[in-house]
Formats: sequence, structure tokens, C-alpha cells
Amino acid sequence: MKVGILGSGTVGRTIGGKLAECGHDVFVGSREPGKLKEWLAGLKGRVQAGTLAEAARHGEIVFNCTAGAGSLDALRVAGEGSLANKVLVDVANPLDFSKGMPPTLLVCNTDSLGEQIQRSFPRTRVVKALNTMNALLMVDPAQLAGGEHDLFLCGNDDGAKRQVTELLKKEFGWKSVIDLGDIGAARGMEMSLPFWLRLYGVYQSPAFNYRIVR
Amino acid sequence: MKVGILGSGTVGRTIGGKLAECGHDVFVGSREPGKLKEWLAGLKGRVQAGTLAEAARHGEIVFNCTAGAGSLDALRVAGEGSLANKVLVDVANPLDFSKGMPPTLLVCNTDSLGEQIQRSFPRTRVVKALNTMNALLMVDPAQLAGGEHDLFLCGNDDGAKRQVTELLKKEFGWKSVIDLGDIGAARGMEMSLPFWLRLYGVYQSPAFNYRIVR
Repeated sequence: MKVGILGSGTVGRTIGGKLAECGHDVFVGSREPGKLKEWLAGLKGRVQAGTLAEAARHGEIVFNCTAGAGSLDALRVAGEGSLANKVLVDVANPLDFSKGMPPTLLVCNTDSLGEQIQRSFPRTRVVKALNTMNALLMVDPAQLAGGEHDLFLCGNDDGAKRQVTELLKKEFGWKSVIDLGDIGAARGMEMSLPFWLRLYGVYQSPAFNYRIVR
Repeated sequence: MKVGILGSGTVGRTIGGKLAECGHDVFVGSREPGKLKEWLAGLKGRVQAGTLAEAARHGEIVFNCTAGAGSLDALRVAGEGSLANKVLVDVANPLDFSKGMPPTLLVCNTDSLGEQIQRSFPRTRVVKALNTMNALLMVDPAQLAGGEHDLFLCGNDDGAKRQVTELLKKEFGWKSVIDLGDIGAARGMEMSLPFWLRLYGVYQSPAFNYRIVR
């Protein structure tokens, strides 16, 4: 499948690299594609890179891996038209590091980044997913407890959620994908970040995840 | 031990009832103690009830089980002096139901109810705990997966956290109590509520909890 990755930080590189490894046609978009030369060289041509707009045009499915504070801007640069009628997997968290550590959220409680994106790009089928964990875990759940832990997603379009669920299971190996409902659940998913950051502090490692026990 | 319970809703009754069952000397404080007659009659004298101030005076350890929106007021009525030098287990969530469902939080992101309480009652040793789950689960973790799931707490006083941890393990049967650090972690614990509420919606039952997988 043609995959567009918006953002070339750790998350974008990890997801893009893994999907290329799985045989997908991956295009990573960045505000500064020149900076990706070394990374691309290491991948021996398996991934293309260019602008955000090129990545959005390329993808049949697009991942928002930009920093949450700049996601709405980056998506506008990527192009509303290029994102129309496509599934956009929103992995970003609206973290504000400007006031020091720990970061706070730029939006929460009565709104969320996921909802803002869906409202700003009404023709795009937004699925919030993968934002509740470390990048390495996103693409390799088996590294913990044989993969016996949970990934959460939400969005307004059931078909989009089914497609993303299949991709996450097939390519990344997720055993359990829990659908939290409409895009309003992005609020809870993003607001769980301060809790995650405390656990990170306790374990001094981001290699952990939640399992819902019933 | 002499235990004071502030608040006589489901949480206060559940925790108070369980600790009385364990042999503790429990006093439940309410703004309207007259309403507790029927409940007290069912307990055959094992629990006393009266005002918030009486409960605060009675307890060597005190549980804040009041509704979060009114907790600061209720604790002032209970009496700063009576709460001084005592451990206060803060179980409350600052939920705002006034704008309909789902509730939002009255304070979050840059502050929390747990922090507000600790700042307002500096002589009290506040431990935030038990707010991330349903009342029945608080006192009976064994009902799920043989108790193999996690309870979280935080606070500025290590001795207070040790005492609360021991109580939770011994009387309620918790196997895993995770210390998230100082009272600032109350932010993450309270902000996890919207996520919890979505899971509640998915399962149509509050009988679930988190297990951290590493």
C-alpha cells in the first residue's frame, strides 16, 4: 500500500521504517527533507522522502507523526485536498514543553487534538491511535509479555477504524486493539499522557504498556 | 485503628464498611448524617456516623470520599486542625457533571485536586489513591484476575505512603501498589478519568482495571 508519513522524528521514522520493511511503498514528508539524507541512505532506497505535501499526495493512508503543537499547521501545509477521503492515523500528542518538564497539554478536558484535526479536515477519516506508548513499542508489541497488552484507537468512521486495526494487527503484530468509540475519545487518550510520563519516571524506561484486566 | 470517612456516598460506604468488617473503629461523616440511618442499621452498630467534623476528629487516618467538586469545602468544614498531622487518603475526582455527560474535570493539566488539597492543608499528609477505579474494586481487587492488576498512589510523605500501602495490601488485598511519586502525580491520576469512562462505555461495566505490562 502507498503510505504517507507526515513528520520525520522518531515516531515517523519508526513507523515509516517498519511499514517499508513490511513491503509498503512509504513516503516520509518533512518540513526539512534535506535532514533525512543520512537516515534514507541507511534504508537503501526502501523509503522515499520529500515535503509534507508530497507525502500527503503519495499516501493512500497517511500517518500524522508531527509534533502535536504543530500538527494542525503541518496538516494544512500537507494539504486539505490531498488528505480528503483518506484515512489519517493521528499519533500525535499536543504536548507543550515550553514551560519546562513535565510537559502540559495544549488542549484537553473539553477538546483534544484528535477532535481539532477531525473538525479542521472534515473530509478526512481521522483515527486516533498509538499515541499512548513509546515509538519502539508501537511497531513491536511482542517485545513485552508476548504482546499480551492493549492498543487503543478511536474515530468517527468504522471502516477507517477497521482498516487501521487490520494494519496494526497484520504489520505490527498487535493482538488486542480496543475501539474506544468516536473521535471524542481522543480526549481521554491524550489526557492519559501525564499518567504515562509518571510511570516512565518510576520505571526509568518507556518499555511498558497497559493491559486491561477484566 | 480509628478511621474517619468523609463522605457517605458509595465510595465512603464501601471503604468504611470494609474497614469496619476488618475490625477497625470507623466513623463516617456526612453533611446530612440523618440520611445514613438505614445503612447504619444494616451494619448493626459496627460503624458510627455523624458530622464531617466528628469524623475528622475521630480518625487517626482519614479518607476523603466526598464528591470532588465539593471536597475542598467539605475538608474545611471537617476542620484543618482535626486533619493536621494525619494521613488523608484522597479518593476524590474533581468531576464536573454540570455540563452533562461525559463529565469534564474542574481542575487538570496544570494542577489537580490532590495538589489543591495538599496546598490548602499543609499540615496534613495527603496520599492520592484509589481514584482510578470503581468503589467495589477498591476494597476487593481479588474479584478480577486473582488480583493481578495495579493500584496507584502518590504523595509528598513517604511514611504516609508506606502506611497507606500497608493498609491497602493487608485489609483490601492489593498485591501491587505503585508509587507514582510526589502529589503532582495526582494530575495524571485524575486526568486518566476520561479514558476510564470510555473503557466503562466499551465494557458496559466498571469491573476492570489496569495492569502495567513490562
